[in-house]
Amino acid sequence: MNAELIHVGTELLLGDILNTNAQYLSKKLAELGINLYYQTVVGDNTDRLTQLLKLASKRSDLVIITGGLGPTQDDLTKESVCQFLNKSLILREDVLLKIKEMFKARNKKMPKNNIKQAMFPSDCMLLDNDMGTAPGLFIQSSNAGFYLLPGPPTEMKNMFTKQVMPLLEKQVGQTIYSKSLKVFGIGESMAEMLISDLLKDQSNPTIAPYAHPYGMEFRLTAKAPRKDLAKELLLPIEKEVRKRLGDNIFGIDAEELENAVFNRLKEKNFTISTAESCTGGLIASKLVNLDGASSVFLGSIVSYSNNLKNSLLDVPLDVLSSDGAVSEACAIKMAEGICKKTGSNVGISTTGIAGPTGGTLEKPVGLVYIGLSVNGETSVYKHNFVGNRNSIRERAARQALDYLRRYLRHL
Amino acid sequence: MNAELIHVGTELLLGDILNTNAQYLSKKLAELGINLYYQTVVGDNTDRLTQLLKLASKRSDLVIITGGLGPTQDDLTKESVCQFLNKSLILREDVLLKIKEMFKARNKKMPKNNIKQAMFPSDCMLLDNDMGTAPGLFIQSSNAGFYLLPGPPTEMKNMFTKQVMPLLEKQVGQTIYSKSLKVFGIGESMAEMLISDLLKDQSNPTIAPYAHPYGMEFRLTAKAPRKDLAKELLLPIEKEVRKRLGDNIFGIDAEELENAVFNRLKEKNFTISTAESCTGGLIASKLVNLDGASSVFLGSIVSYSNNLKNSLLDVPLDVLSSDGAVSEACAIKMAEGICKKTGSNVGISTTGIAGPTGGTLEKPVGLVYIGLSVNGETSVYKHNFVGNRNSIRERAARQALDYLRRYLRHL
Repeated sequence: MNAELIHVGTELLLGDILNTNAQYLSKKLAELGINLYYQTVVGDNTDRLTQLLKLASKRSDLVIITGGLGPTQDDLTKESVCQFLNKSLILREDVLLKIKEMFKARNKKMPKNNIKQAMFPSDCMLLDNDMGTAPGLFIQSSNAGFYLLPGPPTEMKNMFTKQVMPLLEKQVGQTIYSKSLKVFGIGESMAEMLISDLLKDQSNPTIAPYAHPYGMEFRLTAKAPRKDLAKELLLPIEKEVRKRLGDNIFGIDAEELENAVFNRLKEKNFTISTAESCTGGLIASKLVNLDGASSVFLGSIVSYSNNLKNSLLDVPLDVLSSDGAVSEACAIKMAEGICKKTGSNVGISTTGIAGPTGGTLEKPVGLVYIGLSVNGETSVYKHNFVGNRNSIRERAARQALDYLRRYLRHL
Repeated sequence: MNAELIHVGTELLLGDILNTNAQYLSKKLAELGINLYYQTVVGDNTDRLTQLLKLASKRSDLVIITGGLGPTQDDLTKESVCQFLNKSLILREDVLLKIKEMFKARNKKMPKNNIKQAMFPSDCMLLDNDMGTAPGLFIQSSNAGFYLLPGPPTEMKNMFTKQVMPLLEKQVGQTIYSKSLKVFGIGESMAEMLISDLLKDQSNPTIAPYAHPYGMEFRLTAKAPRKDLAKELLLPIEKEVRKRLGDNIFGIDAEELENAVFNRLKEKNFTISTAESCTGGLIASKLVNLDGASSVFLGSIVSYSNNLKNSLLDVPLDVLSSDGAVSEACAIKMAEGICKKTGSNVGISTTGIAGPTGGTLEKPVGLVYIGLSVNGETSVYKHNFVGNRNSIRERAARQALDYLRRYLRHL
């Protein structure tokens, strides 16, 4: 089956919004094993859209259209599809009632132009929209099948996942199950090398590596006639990838390093606090962003000046004068100091030079010491990160969380 | 002049990457006043690309193509353009030398397949690439002009801005000057209402409102035959928008609230520190992210537990027991406490309920108190933010910075 995407909206042609729908749908079609040959963006213009529909029906079996289902005069997708198929729009009273009720629930009267959203070509299949007033539809021409979906990404994704995906899975005779294994602490090429034989000649399940600015993931996807079979099919390959990459896998799907750390701290009934210099509260901020953070996170001291490293964290003045603030000794004292000040089991410290200024030959931009104190045992790690100020700080924060994650795993 | 965009790359059709090039180029063409009617993504396939070029040359005067200029066998844009124009690729020795030198500078030998990047159709104009090995080109057919640009966004944008934009400006007889006025602390609709008469019937300069998750901007754009004339044309409208929106404008273009705060603190020779509970170090992190932060930022204490609010920030135990940690009194004591502990002129504090759990009828999720202490004078602000945990924290952090910005303006 050959597919193409059509995205309708002058706002896309003006560059006002980024076309995330194209990426989302492309990824889904790829997972289904459906060939996608074109994505086209066209404005709110009946002639150009009708022309494009003609072209699409000649070269594709499946056409997915997003946008132009709204209530305004600019929204012309259904009208254009009708013009192309030589059909007319018919009012669906049941849909009109539903839209009116949606407005009523919000204590509003339905504006007259919303009637448009209850008009549909004959012989089409409606697709419900639980997140907005614009229903979608499917209609078959002699050459191709057309799905019309709303433009707003949340509405489109919801409709696609719940209603279109199952139909397409049925059509290709397969259902999809995916899981992402998140990787940190190992280079992308090294990670790929460790599973290079699995990456070669793969068909089902597939393993797709995705590089991110601060880490990577392997997306495993299995296809099978039923979801449970797809899940089952994924198991051995997941087990094998986990075996090869070991501790470098820190979580799945939307999980971040802080989730892994948080979960383990909670399991062990540990509390944590951070003493941050160059990361400036970034590690604390990542932990605080988790719901229920207060059950493990006590607090953080960002000590940007030497004075405060001494007065707030008890870093001895002679350490600061002999070794300097960016040193192994200072990182150790900071990690121990924050544990003492807050009474936490675990203390993380960072001190370094995030740049772009402030670097020297001896202590260049990117030099960061990470201290880790767990129940009185303190270790320290030296790093030379590359990047700009922001990425050096981000790398240091993630690296600190990763050291703690690895440490806690074996405790 | 009617234009269209063609983006070449199977990785786009697989959904591996987001097509940010389309948005960037669309915005630029809109600024130039060039009509854009189509954006099409097509894979690395000579037949389909050649077909598309034929179609494009019939319906557009200007075709901008990105991608497919790399050294691999998959990179077929130049080949397809030659096939369409009935031309052949000719080796340009001068370009080959340049590419070889680029590799030499990185202590590498040029791989053989990079020779491809020095091959060009005859009668084309080369576009230099200072950021990569793939030069771009412009070639004119009988119907349309074709720009071929590299796919990686940094290379594409650099080439477009420096080389293509001036040519297009010449062609349309106009140059463009844009400036974004960044707005915070006023709703989008209210901001638009204040300048509604300017937004209506505008032609040159134009004012385009862009909403962001945490604030908005008005992008002012003027066109004129010369850059200095365009700049001059923008002045009165900028002055008028600034007059209407006043203090709600905090900066221009890439500036954030923390830049405005940082600059003003530096001017006043003030130092700052933060005492953060619900924002968990986010304000500190924003300040630390600025180069030279250490000249004004001293430190931060994230006191997540009641204990630490007392032991680290000297919030009296009776305030914590009578008013609670999320209270006006606590926010005041935190702001004053951090100034005392660090010796800074300015102290910002936050205490609130970021959710999703932890809210009560009296103190619901989203309730945040922001304290602001400047040279011993302390004020406190109460907010009920909406959103999820992350957005409540982000809103609170920005709101705190905005209060300080407004306070400092009149000092």
